[in-house]
Amino acid sequence: MTNIEQVTVAGGGVLGSQIAYQCAFKGKNVTVYDIGDDAVAAARERVKALRTAYKRDIKATDEQFDAGLGRMSFTTDLSEAVKNANLVIEAIPEKPSIKHDFYQSLAKLAPENTIFASNSSTYVPSTFASDTGRPDKFLNLHFANQIWLMNTAEIMGTDQTDPDIYNQIVSFAREIGMVPIQLHKEQPGYVLNTLLMPLMGAAGMLWAHDVADPQTIDKTWMIATGAPKGPFGFYDMVGLRTAYNILSQRQGDNPQAKPLLDKLNAMIEQGKLGEETGQGFYQYPDPDYRDPGFLKA
Amino acid sequence: MTNIEQVTVAGGGVLGSQIAYQCAFKGKNVTVYDIGDDAVAAARERVKALRTAYKRDIKATDEQFDAGLGRMSFTTDLSEAVKNANLVIEAIPEKPSIKHDFYQSLAKLAPENTIFASNSSTYVPSTFASDTGRPDKFLNLHFANQIWLMNTAEIMGTDQTDPDIYNQIVSFAREIGMVPIQLHKEQPGYVLNTLLMPLMGAAGMLWAHDVADPQTIDKTWMIATGAPKGPFGFYDMVGLRTAYNILSQRQGDNPQAKPLLDKLNAMIEQGKLGEETGQGFYQYPDPDYRDPGFLKA
Repeated sequence: MTNIEQVTVAGGGVLGSQIAYQCAFKGKNVTVYDIGDDAVAAARERVKALRTAYKRDIKATDEQFDAGLGRMSFTTDLSEAVKNANLVIEAIPEKPSIKHDFYQSLAKLAPENTIFASNSSTYVPSTFASDTGRPDKFLNLHFANQIWLMNTAEIMGTDQTDPDIYNQIVSFAREIGMVPIQLHKEQPGYVLNTLLMPLMGAAGMLWAHDVADPQTIDKTWMIATGAPKGPFGFYDMVGLRTAYNILSQRQGDNPQAKPLLDKLNAMIEQGKLGEETGQGFYQYPDPDYRDPGFLKA
Repeated sequence: MTNIEQVTVAGGGVLGSQIAYQCAFKGKNVTVYDIGDDAVAAARERVKALRTAYKRDIKATDEQFDAGLGRMSFTTDLSEAVKNANLVIEAIPEKPSIKHDFYQSLAKLAPENTIFASNSSTYVPSTFASDTGRPDKFLNLHFANQIWLMNTAEIMGTDQTDPDIYNQIVSFAREIGMVPIQLHKEQPGYVLNTLLMPLMGAAGMLWAHDVADPQTIDKTWMIATGAPKGPFGFYDMVGLRTAYNILSQRQGDNPQAKPLLDKLNAMIEQGKLGEETGQGFYQYPDPDYRDPGFLKA
């Protein structure tokens, strides 16, 4: 079995560019594919902008960061992008029609042995397996935002995924500095969102039904579990828009959830989207819950 | 309004003895009431045995610990126990008939101004309000195990609780070193269990349905949230028996939950009850999740 050294990341958005750079940083040769010159230029800028975070958060030197950059190339030509790829990681928009078309094109252009992995948050791999022309070499490999810090890689195959391929991706995840989170079955939301969403939903219901306020709820959680943030800190981390979308899928037919969805929606309309906009349930970069006095009052 | 200086704790079990000592440690005069000489002797031993933890965990000196002991007395005479009490904290067994009888007796013996607070985990205060003869001076004040470290006091009144009494208990909670968690409405499970149980349930379902193993699930949680333990660490902390009881109340009619309840029950039958027996999902006192390598593999 060929070691995975040539990696193509399809889609240079926020997460795609992080995945691509992390692979390159860890020594892989990486090609980023995106659909047009503007998208490629934006991806290139996103990658370059990671320097600050890699230096600050994981103490990378400029030399190390530059060496990673030196292992990357960018293209709008899918055929060129995948012709030598051992692995294509797909991080394109979460629209089924776009993904079906992409995998059908990719199936024709990629060498027969190339493994395909989807970073999709929303779709289990069986959704697209038949488009790939190689269901035995297809699975999901899902990363978290701020990949250099939140270094989980959730790995989820279908019934058709070859166990050797699955294990090869587990090793690859370790090679690029990730902790492989192995799922033995398809599970919408993987492990992390399957855990986070019930907690965030329960916390949100306490707030929306006026049982307790967000700060009180977060304090309770932080004291009891020793965690550095509570459920409303998680809302801000995940982003209110994403949280709203997932909770409305899961809870949309529960009338008890309506006050929560309404209150989240009101915050979204005010631009309070969480850490990304500097304001959610807390203000960033210095949210109250990081104040040493927060747990004492 | 009289300041709360004379506190009676009814029930000297595991939590009752912790509540009583914490109040005395913080300067209150405390009487522990229990139903017979053996129960009182056991309570006295439980209180004395807290010395190690107070010295180790919060750096109390022997002098400070002894001063707390000096503010405590023990009795089997309820009338004597409550005759000067500003506050009676009830921590007797979680059986409704026992609690109804207790509050009816207490109502006759305690001065009219004495505030009653229940530590009940299971019952909201309106369950017993009419037994107390003073529904305006009755609420729940709920502590966590290892009160000297897990210093939350969840405070939950009924529609009839006088807001001034509620606020007086908020101040009292602070005086005894607690962070008051103020609930504005009755909520079974208070804040903490309302949050913990959906997370533990979701984690348990992933395990019971063979999606992922407990260590993998805990790693995912710990990396993503920065917490020092994950959901199966919480099972061990809460105790498998308690977790089983709460989850079977909440999920007993959900056929999807049966594999989880069966697997928990099997562990309980093997004596794997969590931290209290030294073995649950992990082995104590040195569970794998505290190993610095746990998050790297």
